[in-house]
Amino acid sequence: MRVGELSKRSGVPVPTIKYYLREGLLPAGVLTSPNQAHYDEGHLRRLRLVRALVDVGDLSIAAVRDVLVAIDTRDSLHNKLGAVQEAISQPSAVDLDPLAVADVQAFFARQGETDCVDVTESNVTHMLAAALSVARSVGHDGMQDLLDPYLEGLKIIAQADVDYIARQSSRDDIIEAMVIGTLIGDTVLKAVRRLAHAQVSRDVIGDRPALEDDES
Amino acid sequence: MRVGELSKRSGVPVPTIKYYLREGLLPAGVLTSPNQAHYDEGHLRRLRLVRALVDVGDLSIAAVRDVLVAIDTRDSLHNKLGAVQEAISQPSAVDLDPLAVADVQAFFARQGETDCVDVTESNVTHMLAAALSVARSVGHDGMQDLLDPYLEGLKIIAQADVDYIARQSSRDDIIEAMVIGTLIGDTVLKAVRRLAHAQVSRDVIGDRPALEDDES
Repeated sequence: MRVGELSKRSGVPVPTIKYYLREGLLPAGVLTSPNQAHYDEGHLRRLRLVRALVDVGDLSIAAVRDVLVAIDTRDSLHNKLGAVQEAISQPSAVDLDPLAVADVQAFFARQGETDCVDVTESNVTHMLAAALSVARSVGHDGMQDLLDPYLEGLKIIAQADVDYIARQSSRDDIIEAMVIGTLIGDTVLKAVRRLAHAQVSRDVIGDRPALEDDES
Repeated sequence: MRVGELSKRSGVPVPTIKYYLREGLLPAGVLTSPNQAHYDEGHLRRLRLVRALVDVGDLSIAAVRDVLVAIDTRDSLHNKLGAVQEAISQPSAVDLDPLAVADVQAFFARQGETDCVDVTESNVTHMLAAALSVARSVGHDGMQDLLDPYLEGLKIIAQADVDYIARQSSRDDIIEAMVIGTLIGDTVLKAVRRLAHAQVSRDVIGDRPALEDDES
């Protein structure tokens, strides 16, 4: 198909497609004449993935490029999943609290994790240390106690995620499911967490008064 | 203390404090002279909470105001937790897919949920329907199958969250723990989810080749 049809089928404007081509987020089409290129279903699919990363994941062009490199590198699915997750977890600008970094390292040690424990080497580890640093800065130095029960619950969730990914049949489907599942899954998780809070709090603190009189 | 000391102790610049006062995010100090107001520990605490909402939660001033109203309204802890969660879950601009809305309603029906099932009435429900709508728009119409296992895992997580909240001793501590725990908890959860993925995928798909030859 020509670029006009690629635009029509993807809903992405032609100038944006040309920008992605220049930035290397979309492979060049096959030239059918000096001024005309031909695109196939692979281009359409890649374009939809780029849009999902930009729109849903709110990723920068540089981060999208990192994700695509991770996807296109020949490696095992397990390593590829790790690389994609690193790419979509860009580090924040938060100053890390050494105590929070120590909490994260203690958590990894308890869990027998030896990969990616260094905050300077893993975006995911940095994200965790940054969140605990912010908590400490507003006086919450006990949040690391939540890490073990969080991981326990998240293993059930990860099992469902990995089953969902493994159900996909082709290589492209699996990779897309990893990226989409991780990004959209984060938002789904946030929303369902609210429901879980409502259900649990109804049982645990439903009848407890709001301590209105304790204004100390 | 005077506004200069409030600024020094909170790390928030005086012009920003004055802006929050004008916007009603911080109650006025007690006037000790026509041009001088006195602030107490309650102001400092509220100011730190506002900063956490702005910096960690990335909330707009209007959303911060909604959270503070929810906090200051006399109600049970359970209802207050719900109101705070609604306030920090601002709806996205995503067009909802009616099929995704039906998926969310079916999920709520399965779970026996009767509150907040309407996407026009609940920000949390809207967030969930929006995430599933985006998934559908990129060809993933099976993600609703993840909702039940997600809730199962999140109940373990919510139990830890509610225990953490209930451990706080004063009314102000409990409310702050709700807000901070929900906002920072979302990021902690995202990071720990990556670790859970890594652990589970090592077991399930670790040895599976990446299907490099299936380029169909």
